[in-house]
Amino acid sequence: MAGVGGEVVTTAAEIESYRRDRAHDPNVGTPIAVVLAESTADVQAAVRWAALHGVVVVTRGAGTGLSGGSSAIDGGIVISTERMRAHSIDVQTRVAVVQPGLLNAEVKAFAGEHGLWYPPDPASFEICSIGGNVATNAGGLCCVKYGVTADYVLGMEVVLSDGRAVRFGGPLVKDVAGLSLLKLFVGSEGTLGIITEITLRLLPAQPAPRTVVGWFSSTEEAAAAILEIASRLRPSMLEYLDRTSINAVEDMLGLGLDRGAAALVVARSDMQGAGDPEIPTMLDALLRHGATSAFECADAAEGERYAHARRMVIPAVELQGSLMLEDVGVSITRLPELVAGVERIAAAHDVTIAFIAHAGDGNTHPLVVFDPADQDLTARATLAYGEVMDLALELGGTITGEHGVGRLKRPWLVNQIGVDVLEISQRIKDALDPAGLFSPGVIFEGTTARNPKELS
Amino acid sequence: MAGVGGEVVTTAAEIESYRRDRAHDPNVGTPIAVVLAESTADVQAAVRWAALHGVVVVTRGAGTGLSGGSSAIDGGIVISTERMRAHSIDVQTRVAVVQPGLLNAEVKAFAGEHGLWYPPDPASFEICSIGGNVATNAGGLCCVKYGVTADYVLGMEVVLSDGRAVRFGGPLVKDVAGLSLLKLFVGSEGTLGIITEITLRLLPAQPAPRTVVGWFSSTEEAAAAILEIASRLRPSMLEYLDRTSINAVEDMLGLGLDRGAAALVVARSDMQGAGDPEIPTMLDALLRHGATSAFECADAAEGERYAHARRMVIPAVELQGSLMLEDVGVSITRLPELVAGVERIAAAHDVTIAFIAHAGDGNTHPLVVFDPADQDLTARATLAYGEVMDLALELGGTITGEHGVGRLKRPWLVNQIGVDVLEISQRIKDALDPAGLFSPGVIFEGTTARNPKELS
Repeated sequence: MAGVGGEVVTTAAEIESYRRDRAHDPNVGTPIAVVLAESTADVQAAVRWAALHGVVVVTRGAGTGLSGGSSAIDGGIVISTERMRAHSIDVQTRVAVVQPGLLNAEVKAFAGEHGLWYPPDPASFEICSIGGNVATNAGGLCCVKYGVTADYVLGMEVVLSDGRAVRFGGPLVKDVAGLSLLKLFVGSEGTLGIITEITLRLLPAQPAPRTVVGWFSSTEEAAAAILEIASRLRPSMLEYLDRTSINAVEDMLGLGLDRGAAALVVARSDMQGAGDPEIPTMLDALLRHGATSAFECADAAEGERYAHARRMVIPAVELQGSLMLEDVGVSITRLPELVAGVERIAAAHDVTIAFIAHAGDGNTHPLVVFDPADQDLTARATLAYGEVMDLALELGGTITGEHGVGRLKRPWLVNQIGVDVLEISQRIKDALDPAGLFSPGVIFEGTTARNPKELS
Repeated sequence: MAGVGGEVVTTAAEIESYRRDRAHDPNVGTPIAVVLAESTADVQAAVRWAALHGVVVVTRGAGTGLSGGSSAIDGGIVISTERMRAHSIDVQTRVAVVQPGLLNAEVKAFAGEHGLWYPPDPASFEICSIGGNVATNAGGLCCVKYGVTADYVLGMEVVLSDGRAVRFGGPLVKDVAGLSLLKLFVGSEGTLGIITEITLRLLPAQPAPRTVVGWFSSTEEAAAAILEIASRLRPSMLEYLDRTSINAVEDMLGLGLDRGAAALVVARSDMQGAGDPEIPTMLDALLRHGATSAFECADAAEGERYAHARRMVIPAVELQGSLMLEDVGVSITRLPELVAGVERIAAAHDVTIAFIAHAGDGNTHPLVVFDPADQDLTARATLAYGEVMDLALELGGTITGEHGVGRLKRPWLVNQIGVDVLEISQRIKDALDPAGLFSPGVIFEGTTARNPKELS
């Protein structure tokens, strides 16, 4: 790979840790090299080399993706942005310019040093990169009030499939000059280009939140309470954990959670002022819908323990087996049907499905537990995984709220968006990446790049 | 136009009122027909007819566009969405589904009936359509705190250039299934398809705002006060009017404004709670930066008078002559340079340029006054119009913050986004509208559709 800057890793041992993301795609391949880019120029050189040789490219941030969007491909290369970590902040205009390798938590920390706040907060915020967040249009817990990553991206620099680096947008909240390629690239999961710099809108530091907790002996009652809270207020967090999730976290962290409860609801308000009317309304809704116990956390530390418990569910359930991670979303009015339907699917296939949800925005994460060594269980889990997505679509929902389609949800995509939208999406993909160089098999079908000689 | 539903208007007298939008494009053409569509099927039939005959299509909402995006084209047709006015609201999930012909004010009113709020508020909100707002990614006065139209669009139905109707997105805040064609189409100004239905996110009703007013004898001092307010607080409105604008409004409305002032700043806070710390901070910033007078409005009616005065500036200045409407934006730190630079340009070309701004987000509207009958003045105004955009780009800004490129700003677009981004934008345009049927000359070059027989 002459002329390709950054460190180029080619030994099998070094490559191994760049093959998989957190989805543990069983069909992951082995790349011929991993480029640890340190600059936009490094990314450009690697892309030009790949284009010249007809070698496919998979972009990788921190490798925490949950849909296999960073699964390596046999014979391809991986371009890692983990070493691209420059950043600057303009405090007066509340705008940050960051390279993709910074972790989400680092962006939050840098903003915080200036009294500012970058809201999007995937549960993995301490280990996921801002580049991956933008590439997947990541969500999180605060999105119910503060929106998703796309709402905070003002500009970006991107390396295209021919190696050109271009800029979309800029530092302005209002800028409508030309087609919004900026927003098209947010959530494009590495299929259109490689994001090498991001301009982010920040907010003033978040007001200190207050946390309310409700325990339920019935999942239906918990869902009803959530609907009322979400439709009457604007909670800054509204999360749901089922019994399996509660017990998995309790096994791992030993927080003293109620193992017998059917569901736990964690809600936050960050309205300012001492007379916050949201807290009593939340408590009232929880109790009227049958909470066996509902209370406001005594202090920030106790509130953070519950939020942390919610964030730790995926790692906790991972201790019980391999996971097929769902990311289905429905309107909150359909949440009770989704909860009940997932329970039916789990029972029908005799598999464990832990159920957590960013309930306030209807985005849920049923976690299908399986053991790759158990063929029969794996087959049943695979069926259940597909049926949960089918159910979400029947309820007018989405197969993916915030994780992305990646490789693992691609077979279900057409059922959601339809052949016409998939076809025009493919036209855009072909217009920007005619050789199919970037992440074949992610969102779109494909496994290899087209031979560069075949292209006109 | 056999088979085309809706009313089809073909007489010269009836067509006349559909030729121009509010930009009064001097090079506007005469269409062969205007289709007053009443349904998505009507739009599809009209597009299919146009595609079959190689006739270009211009989409028109309420005709209040300020960049000539709805200028009719000789030999083309206009499809008006003004009769497509269906709407529904889901109160529990705070989602509205509307057809494009509803006015922005009507969407606000329907939401308000249910205690909900649709924030984006172009100054023309009482006469502009929601379809046009989405097509241009319109902004407004509250955007400094609440964001632009794109931030509220969750889904849409679109008629493509081959007559297919497709849906992007849906009712969910979190939905990342596939490329975000949804956000690509927001702000595409009719060049990619015709928006026939929109799904909008709503917020709970806005808290009652409080309004603060500051009068200045120096534009520099006003700009400095604005920078401090915008960087310290999150005002829900932060507007600027210069002397020419103040006097134009005073001529029209006779509100008793101070005709001798150099600048007027109108700021709002909608923070909840009686002890709103924003109001005293605003007053302090205005006075410390040299306001000759600064005060909080006594009541909502007085506050609304100042907001109304700001919104009426464009119609008021229109009484003094024809306008070339600028929409340039810069980071607020560069606002003083933009204000001073526009004053220099006006003096150099001996033209009147009224200056108003959504100052808090750096989006400004210098209004170049001219008389089409005065060739020399028109030539000087045209030079000034271009130089203001050149200046905004020198300051790292945009040629259009919220009005769109349309036909009138197209020659300057490449100077902002560059040849590479324009080229890949053109590839997307060609991928979705290979015949160049939709709005040739808007954003992209072109005047006629390609002959359908020339297309493969």
